[in-house]
Amino acid sequence: MSVIYNRVALIGLGLIASSMFWAIKRAGLANEVTGFSRSAKTRDTAREIGLCDRVCNNLTDAVIDADLIVLCVPVGAMEDVAMQIAPGLKSGATVSDVGSVKRAVIDAVAPHLPDDVHFIPAHPLAGTEQSGPTSGFAELFDNRWCLLVPLEDTDPAQVDRLADFWHGLGSNVECMEPDHHDLVLAVTSHTPHLIAYTMVGVADDLRRVTDSEVVKYSAAGFRDFTRIAASDPTMWRDVFLNNKDATLEILGRFTEELFALQRAIRKGDGKELHDYFTRTRAIRRGIIEAGQDTDAPNFGRGPKK
Amino acid sequence: MSVIYNRVALIGLGLIASSMFWAIKRAGLANEVTGFSRSAKTRDTAREIGLCDRVCNNLTDAVIDADLIVLCVPVGAMEDVAMQIAPGLKSGATVSDVGSVKRAVIDAVAPHLPDDVHFIPAHPLAGTEQSGPTSGFAELFDNRWCLLVPLEDTDPAQVDRLADFWHGLGSNVECMEPDHHDLVLAVTSHTPHLIAYTMVGVADDLRRVTDSEVVKYSAAGFRDFTRIAASDPTMWRDVFLNNKDATLEILGRFTEELFALQRAIRKGDGKELHDYFTRTRAIRRGIIEAGQDTDAPNFGRGPKK
Ligand SMILES: NC(=O)c1ccc[n+]([C@@H]2O[C@H](COP(=O)([O-])OP(=O)(O)OC[C@H]3O[C@@H](n4cnc5c(N)ncnc54)[C@H](OP(=O)(O)O)[C@@H]3O)[C@@H](O)[C@H]2O)c1
Ligand SMILES: NC(=O)c1ccc[n+]([C@@H]2O[C@H](COP(=O)([O-])OP(=O)(O)OC[C@H]3O[C@@H](n4cnc5c(N)ncnc54)[C@H](OP(=O)(O)O)[C@@H]3O)[C@@H](O)[C@H]2O)c1
Repeated sequence: MSVIYNRVALIGLGLIASSMFWAIKRAGLANEVTGFSRSAKTRDTAREIGLCDRVCNNLTDAVIDADLIVLCVPVGAMEDVAMQIAPGLKSGATVSDVGSVKRAVIDAVAPHLPDDVHFIPAHPLAGTEQSGPTSGFAELFDNRWCLLVPLEDTDPAQVDRLADFWHGLGSNVECMEPDHHDLVLAVTSHTPHLIAYTMVGVADDLRRVTDSEVVKYSAAGFRDFTRIAASDPTMWRDVFLNNKDATLEILGRFTEELFALQRAIRKGDGKELHDYFTRTRAIRRGIIEAGQDTDAPNFGRGPKK
Repeated sequence: MSVIYNRVALIGLGLIASSMFWAIKRAGLANEVTGFSRSAKTRDTAREIGLCDRVCNNLTDAVIDADLIVLCVPVGAMEDVAMQIAPGLKSGATVSDVGSVKRAVIDAVAPHLPDDVHFIPAHPLAGTEQSGPTSGFAELFDNRWCLLVPLEDTDPAQVDRLADFWHGLGSNVECMEPDHHDLVLAVTSHTPHLIAYTMVGVADDLRRVTDSEVVKYSAAGFRDFTRIAASDPTMWRDVFLNNKDATLEILGRFTEELFALQRAIRKGDGKELHDYFTRTRAIRRGIIEAGQDTDAPNFGRGPKK
């Protein structure tokens, strides 16, 4: 791969930014990568582990002369960061982000950016339940999708350039309209996370079943939910606050279906349950065939620890 | 390990029975293992892959002279099987099962068994989303829990013997009272499965988001739910029909909590969301420390397929 942006600035140095850095280096997509994180602790860690060619102590230094600036902070922090970097942006630079919600980020960021920079929102659909500067790895985006959500008047050449960059990071790339993005993600990510958090909360709360029983006997299904319910609380708070409408819509659909199944259980309607459980099997096969998950039983986790 | 039962009969030859067979052989827990499954297809497959020392064409042949008979069929089929094997059981034999629900199995099976056999219900908390005679493997029960649910008047020496057998299969063993078992499992297994089935059903149903979008963009969380929603429909229908009260109770708790979070989203109450998401993280750590799940990101599934 060859250099796509001479200088890239990563703002926020958590899971996504650190994975981007290692993947940029793997493919040689930039000559220099600068980085900034608000806490001295994260900046120190980044310096220790060689995360970024140069870790800056303030936002202005990080973005100066950068050709691509990627905002890798929680969705609720995007506006603040955009306001702070705006005065220091080079004319013709591209500003992008990796936020899990797109409409709210566009509304928060776009008004603050000068007219002579290209703003191209993006969202890599890849992650783990871990966070912080040491959690990243170069392969995170391999064979995953990155959705670009360009505004209507954006220069197509700059969109193609950012798409090349994400291809270089290992991703497949697709463009999507912001509201549709937020609805698709409400289904494939946001609502599943809320439901997992809820199920884990219920288990934790139940007096008649102790926490230690929940932990010991978790391998019968529950443990699958605890992984995504271990994700970063700030990131997820911001997702729900900023994708309210779509999440509430899908939650409404979810409770409707859940009540129908609950009723089938109460009435003892085995046929309805069997039909429902049969229908849902096909999707798993589709996901495995599309290379978006492993076909190994139990996700391939070993039977032994 | 040494022989614990001279002859073991496995009734039903799916995931659990086949895993038991390979684990019995690994540890040498029996001199002979007979097997029976209702369909000629499953019996033929079993013979081809060497599953069981002897696959019988009828139940009577399978249980004759057996010291331990394990019912490994769906919960709803237990009564029928019990009625059929009862006349052929050897005096002093132990009958056990592996059903995911215990109160209903006890009520269905116990009345049909002669007084001179020991009935000791059991439930290994180990499984995968796959089923059938080829899906088993010897390590399935290693370091997982097997719950024994003996009736009050059962000979403790026979309970110990069955516990030794499950230890030999690789499990930790604990005794539990049937109603408590059904409640614990409603939390750690049954309700999570119903919720996963529901979430997958919602995604499948939503007209405005296509199935192919759901599949392509599943790596952002949704794919975790599709694994358990790919489990056998008959097994799960029977679980819900036979653990109605506990499942409905936990579902009630679940919707209560879900509505509280939904309200927090609607009101924009970030603090409540953040607090909730923080509380649920601890359980994951507990599960990893207890050796009931891997600590590798994304369950250790490779970033690449
Ligand atoms: N994790 C995922 O699975 C995933 C997947 C796709 C997209 N995303 C999106 O990617 C973005 C980053 O997520 P991540 O997982 O990389 O997060 P992370 O590992 O938790 O790192 C977050 C970074 O943002 C900084 N930060 C936090 N709050 C801030 C604030 N109020 N103002 C300025 N900076 C702040 C942190 O700085 P300090 O460390 O210095 O405090 C840290 O550098 C989020 O928008 C998220 O929605 C996440
Ligand atoms: N899967 C899990 O994760 C798991 C975990 C713990 C406990 N369990 C319990 O273990 C038991 C077996 O589950 P499994 O996963 O091993 O199932 P499986 O792989 O689907 O195999 C089911 C077996 O039961 C037989 N069977 C099905 N319906 C029957 C009927 N109406 N009458 C007689 N036999 C019938 C099948 O026979 P044919 O193949 O000949 O049709 C097959 O041999 C169930 O009670 C389940 O609740 C399962």
